[in-house]
Amino acid sequence: MSKKVAVLVAGSWGTALASVLAANQLDVIMWTRGEDQATEINNKHTNQRFLPDAELSPRIQATTDMAKAVEGASAVLIVAPSSAMRSVAHQLKAHYKPEMLIIHATKGFETESLNRMSTVISEELECEEGRVVVLSGPSHAEEVVKRCPTTVVVASLDKASAEAAQGLFMNAYFRVYTNRDMIGVELAGAFKNIIALGAGMSDGLNFGDNAKAALLTRGLAEITRIGVEMGANPLTFSGLAGIGDLVVTATSQHSRNWRAGSLLGKGQKLDDVLNSMGMVVEGIRTTQAAHFISQKYGVQMPIADQLYHVLFQERQPRDAVEALMGRDPKTEMEVMTLETWEQWHS
Amino acid sequence: MSKKVAVLVAGSWGTALASVLAANQLDVIMWTRGEDQATEINNKHTNQRFLPDAELSPRIQATTDMAKAVEGASAVLIVAPSSAMRSVAHQLKAHYKPEMLIIHATKGFETESLNRMSTVISEELECEEGRVVVLSGPSHAEEVVKRCPTTVVVASLDKASAEAAQGLFMNAYFRVYTNRDMIGVELAGAFKNIIALGAGMSDGLNFGDNAKAALLTRGLAEITRIGVEMGANPLTFSGLAGIGDLVVTATSQHSRNWRAGSLLGKGQKLDDVLNSMGMVVEGIRTTQAAHFISQKYGVQMPIADQLYHVLFQERQPRDAVEALMGRDPKTEMEVMTLETWEQWHS
Repeated sequence: MSKKVAVLVAGSWGTALASVLAANQLDVIMWTRGEDQATEINNKHTNQRFLPDAELSPRIQATTDMAKAVEGASAVLIVAPSSAMRSVAHQLKAHYKPEMLIIHATKGFETESLNRMSTVISEELECEEGRVVVLSGPSHAEEVVKRCPTTVVVASLDKASAEAAQGLFMNAYFRVYTNRDMIGVELAGAFKNIIALGAGMSDGLNFGDNAKAALLTRGLAEITRIGVEMGANPLTFSGLAGIGDLVVTATSQHSRNWRAGSLLGKGQKLDDVLNSMGMVVEGIRTTQAAHFISQKYGVQMPIADQLYHVLFQERQPRDAVEALMGRDPKTEMEVMTLETWEQWHS
Repeated sequence: MSKKVAVLVAGSWGTALASVLAANQLDVIMWTRGEDQATEINNKHTNQRFLPDAELSPRIQATTDMAKAVEGASAVLIVAPSSAMRSVAHQLKAHYKPEMLIIHATKGFETESLNRMSTVISEELECEEGRVVVLSGPSHAEEVVKRCPTTVVVASLDKASAEAAQGLFMNAYFRVYTNRDMIGVELAGAFKNIIALGAGMSDGLNFGDNAKAALLTRGLAEITRIGVEMGANPLTFSGLAGIGDLVVTATSQHSRNWRAGSLLGKGQKLDDVLNSMGMVVEGIRTTQAAHFISQKYGVQMPIADQLYHVLFQERQPRDAVEALMGRDPKTEMEVMTLETWEQWHS
């Protein structure tokens, strides 16, 4: 097997994952649309805009020519923004060979279709969705390039593909677990941004640690419930892609989702928050997607629903929290069907 | 039903829970061994030593006479330290009537027997263990007396008892969920202190957010695994008593367990840490208990095991983390048996 891995594109997470592959003695070629960025990576071994202060291995090269990036690679890692995933995968098709291992590390849904990323990729590459591998978990890119201990999960319906991805990435500071629940890992990664937004809002309102922990826990229950309905294993949401990533995102002031929520909690309007941040806040788009998904599947998502009203219908954050606290008494666990369990543990 | 509830004893969490009951128009009598403390609560409506700055309702009275505290009460809430639980329950026996609702909110094991608190209580009261209710969840006492939004879980094998407890406590700022998995709620509350200790150690070593999230997630997997072996429902560990309480404990600098772990991570010796803190650190005792429990049940607890070596066998914290990162590649989810599932979802 060739020791070459292609990485599309050269954002902060793609670059951090490239640094892990390079540490494992693999040859990494990053594809980017930015001519200057490619030159900077090749000549200075830095990627200032996305990972300031990081020094990259000379094993990491970059190019704007996708044919050159992908040719002869045994694996292709796609880390495009969710909104660019279809066009990147479409461009990859001309150079794709069925024996290539396809891994992605992108969180979110395609806005129009509500499709998961692996569906978008497999549609464009005309390959089996079950062979695509998703990589996810609690991982600030800045810490990974510094070789801080990090754990992630790689999931695929195809065991051999997941294990091949595990073999590419695993090393002494980057521990990789496999999971066959690709759907659950993708859904957990996307939905968790809603809860991070809610946790920020609670902090913006100064509601305290008890309230934030409640939001994280009941939020986890809620995204697990919808996830199961969409075909996921409930336990995946208690794993690295679920609660692990949620803890990192919802308790870090560096998280855009947490920060946007916090500003909303302090009373700012959505437009002002977005203007002041000047960046995409993935959790806002995902809250909108969840609104439609929860209707489509007939599953209650009380926290996502209250956030939807705050974001798009001018409900006051404080009223949203009161509505959540004032619901009828409930049991903690919604019963899942035996079929769900058998499906995952046969 | 009488509107009187007895609370044994008058520590910070007992007093905070008393304040919730008083807010719900119940008459609360706290029992304490401290004559001065009882006088302070009755005359000044404060409990300075345990909850500085809190102003208590005049509905909360205190006494050093257990007969007076318990007589005519429809419910008794026990919030004694785990080490005092047996003697308090023993003293209660003389005044206990079978129609009284017994609720406890104590986390930990009896050190010698490794028994859960509900076992200790039911042995002393000679009542059915299944009727005891445990209350647990992410809840700093300081925030509860300030009426910050808080959620907890009450668990009992007896649905009517759990719902009665839910009815006593639930209000607009204190949301109570029921769960029939009493064992799981008790185990999650006790074991989570080990993981909080580990999270503190990771922070003391400056390992970063990725490492801490990994510890919390893999720690959750580990305490779930042993919990299932001891008769708990795995999903309880993803609920308020498990991950909810873990998040509050492991990310708060006010947590004694986190703080002790952090000092160990910075290189202090266990004895020095304990001396400098001058308080019981529950997670240390629980790590020792887990060492014996994991051997007894033949279940691997790699994180608890490494902590045991750091605490009692002079392993360096950094070596412990390296040992955890360097284990063989694994799948994320250990398979649980179908019987476990059927037991909980029939």
